[in-house]
Amino acid sequence: MIKDTVRLLLFACIATPAFAQSPDASAIRQIFDTELTQGKSYAALEYLTTRIGARLSGSPGAAAGVEWSRHEMENFADSVWLQPVMVPHWIRGQQEQARIVNSKKGTIEMNVCALGMSVGTGPEGVTGQVIEVKSFDELKQLGEKRIKGKIVFFNRPMDLKQINTFAAYGGAVEQRALGPSEAAKYGAVGVIVRSMGMNQEDYPHTGSLRYALNIPKIPAIAISTRHAELLSKLLQTEKDLQFYFETHCETLPDAPSFNVIGEIKGSQYPNEIIVVGGHLDSWDLAQGAHDDGTGCVQSMEVLRLMKMIGYKPKRTIRAVMFMNEENGLRGGLEYARQAALKQEKHIAAIESDDGGFTPRGFTMNAQEGPKARIKSWKPLFAPYGLTDFEEEGAGADIGPLEPQGVTTLGFLPDSQRYFDYHHTREDTFDKVSKRELELGAASMAALVYLLDQHGLN
Amino acid sequence: MIKDTVRLLLFACIATPAFAQSPDASAIRQIFDTELTQGKSYAALEYLTTRIGARLSGSPGAAAGVEWSRHEMENFADSVWLQPVMVPHWIRGQQEQARIVNSKKGTIEMNVCALGMSVGTGPEGVTGQVIEVKSFDELKQLGEKRIKGKIVFFNRPMDLKQINTFAAYGGAVEQRALGPSEAAKYGAVGVIVRSMGMNQEDYPHTGSLRYALNIPKIPAIAISTRHAELLSKLLQTEKDLQFYFETHCETLPDAPSFNVIGEIKGSQYPNEIIVVGGHLDSWDLAQGAHDDGTGCVQSMEVLRLMKMIGYKPKRTIRAVMFMNEENGLRGGLEYARQAALKQEKHIAAIESDDGGFTPRGFTMNAQEGPKARIKSWKPLFAPYGLTDFEEEGAGADIGPLEPQGVTTLGFLPDSQRYFDYHHTREDTFDKVSKRELELGAASMAALVYLLDQHGLN
Repeated sequence: MIKDTVRLLLFACIATPAFAQSPDASAIRQIFDTELTQGKSYAALEYLTTRIGARLSGSPGAAAGVEWSRHEMENFADSVWLQPVMVPHWIRGQQEQARIVNSKKGTIEMNVCALGMSVGTGPEGVTGQVIEVKSFDELKQLGEKRIKGKIVFFNRPMDLKQINTFAAYGGAVEQRALGPSEAAKYGAVGVIVRSMGMNQEDYPHTGSLRYALNIPKIPAIAISTRHAELLSKLLQTEKDLQFYFETHCETLPDAPSFNVIGEIKGSQYPNEIIVVGGHLDSWDLAQGAHDDGTGCVQSMEVLRLMKMIGYKPKRTIRAVMFMNEENGLRGGLEYARQAALKQEKHIAAIESDDGGFTPRGFTMNAQEGPKARIKSWKPLFAPYGLTDFEEEGAGADIGPLEPQGVTTLGFLPDSQRYFDYHHTREDTFDKVSKRELELGAASMAALVYLLDQHGLN
Repeated sequence: MIKDTVRLLLFACIATPAFAQSPDASAIRQIFDTELTQGKSYAALEYLTTRIGARLSGSPGAAAGVEWSRHEMENFADSVWLQPVMVPHWIRGQQEQARIVNSKKGTIEMNVCALGMSVGTGPEGVTGQVIEVKSFDELKQLGEKRIKGKIVFFNRPMDLKQINTFAAYGGAVEQRALGPSEAAKYGAVGVIVRSMGMNQEDYPHTGSLRYALNIPKIPAIAISTRHAELLSKLLQTEKDLQFYFETHCETLPDAPSFNVIGEIKGSQYPNEIIVVGGHLDSWDLAQGAHDDGTGCVQSMEVLRLMKMIGYKPKRTIRAVMFMNEENGLRGGLEYARQAALKQEKHIAAIESDDGGFTPRGFTMNAQEGPKARIKSWKPLFAPYGLTDFEEEGAGADIGPLEPQGVTTLGFLPDSQRYFDYHHTREDTFDKVSKRELELGAASMAALVYLLDQHGLN
């Protein structure tokens, strides 16, 4: 790509936003300019992901993440504290094994990983015939007679036709979350779930299952999408395939951990709180970059930017690093419980947990009044490419605040690459674009600025 | 990231666009569905980039690209032909060398590459004191007295504050394109240009220079942004640094090459032509993935999609793989010249040459009538995330058609990552997201469909 120099120079001139006059527009311009030229979010992410790495609840990495977050926020927050919370402590144990043992092609090793919160098989493993299904209805029709003693293979793909990949995830994830207990109802001895990925990949995607009460807990694994296709193909001609898998995961007693909270006290309405947050915990397979290192460092950066540009908020601004979003939500629940106990008045909460990609807008769960107020700010975001303020939703960790009447919002980045990395070994620092990350941090800071300036009443 | 399953399932339902009733909306839905589930653009790109690779004009890779494009398009076009064009034939020759020879820290090797179309230094190299400047004005002020016999170092960074990175490029690229001749006016013996990149990187960005007439041609190199920073820092305390560089590039006699054109003949208005294209040539340092393998395979895919969905266009649709965009534009010029000679009536031309990233909209150079018509289609694109139809511009290769009154458009993807790869060794297949590529191909096919259905009069 070359471009005619003159045309490009003209373009550079017209790219200056026409909105650049109002105080709000100027402040937002300053936020973006500062982040894009002197931002620290990318360096913070590098530390969190490459020096600390995986941060599953209860792990040494999570503890290191807590210490680092506290230390980091002390550089720019008025106060930083730890909010204790007991968290589930699930560990993967030694490497999973899985193979087809009796194919005409011989033994075929399979790329799998245990699902989070699954029970393990132990060293004896599980062996069984594989029954492939695409839905819980299909499972029900097969019934106990066909399922008992078998391994159920949930193989409904994510719908590639969905433009927003989270919609595709929403259409498939019940297989992972609820499939193991659904299969156990009919006497299955194990579950294989097709990984929640949009592409043909060699690596599996982990993620939590949720066992139902009073149903036997059976071991469950995710299989890479490529091996899901292979297994399905083999099953067409070899119905009596025997599948073996061995997992060593286990759930230890709950462990002590913390939400990490940094705060800048409001000068005018200190009792009105605006929260911006991400979750500090991450799956054990990688570095937790897009899920959710980016959300953490962007949330911290909102506070840091306020210091950098010398902005004194009227309201109290808190950056919250929630613990245990991935397999329990204990941090989000505890934060809301404490807020209620202390009768704190939260006016809004924003979460970034959809990856550190180019900003497209914000989602929200809000009453009509606050929603209209927030949408009235759209012209201020347009010069930065944020145009989508229509979707409902916010974030898992701030959901528990909603019953307190808090307006919740979600940072909405481009969704196309998220599920290439989500819950896999691929969710590493190098998958994050510095510019995309910074634009997200600045967008969140701009929204917090507007909420602080104008409130929601 | 986990989400409440029920919420996500609801979301999957509401994500279906409300616009889904009109015939146009249905056709566009079919285009996207087909590309996202059965598209061949990603496989085509893999072949073009990993099997063929670099395709600089006149190189064996370019010739292979021509043959492959012809062969590929024969699978779905009514006819495919080669349009001969003579192209510049510049070669890099053996690996460049560059070093600071007399720093207090000793000899420091520098990461550089020759600029495209530069003369070489030959084996004796060039040595000189380095004069750093940020602008042509600064150069002029220094004048012949200070410049003569020296090496000029253009070190004005791309403006990180620009949200659209092409605007930042537009503000800096004159240093590369025109800097060498500007410096030569004052007797410089060589030029170092800070690479056109937004990040701190170790690898240099090549790209064409344009020597002015009647000014001595002096050798010019790009230096990695990280080494530009280092050199600048050293110069602050060591003004008499001697810089050595050696390049072996040369320009051979013009070589024969081709534009590759695939066509589906219109059923109703065969003489009205709609062009969709990218450029087949690419720099020699990498695989030419985002620049512009993606534009090529997306353009081919527009034709392939028409066959796949069984759409018979009323007007003639051409996919054009232009040759020599990078260092001469001879293909674009020849295509327009032939169109004029044959009195062909082109109603519109679309180019994809800003990378294969998530679609944001289309740019255009159009009269008011066609512009209004195209903007009236915005609601049809909104469900796919394309909302930006405001910017001027199109593409270099189709620019020469504009004097013939042709409406020209540019595919507008997200710009944040483009200059991480542009003209560097990093522009490889693995940097392209399958989904992002496919969304672009489908967006272009949707626009061609609308142009074909409704024309621009």
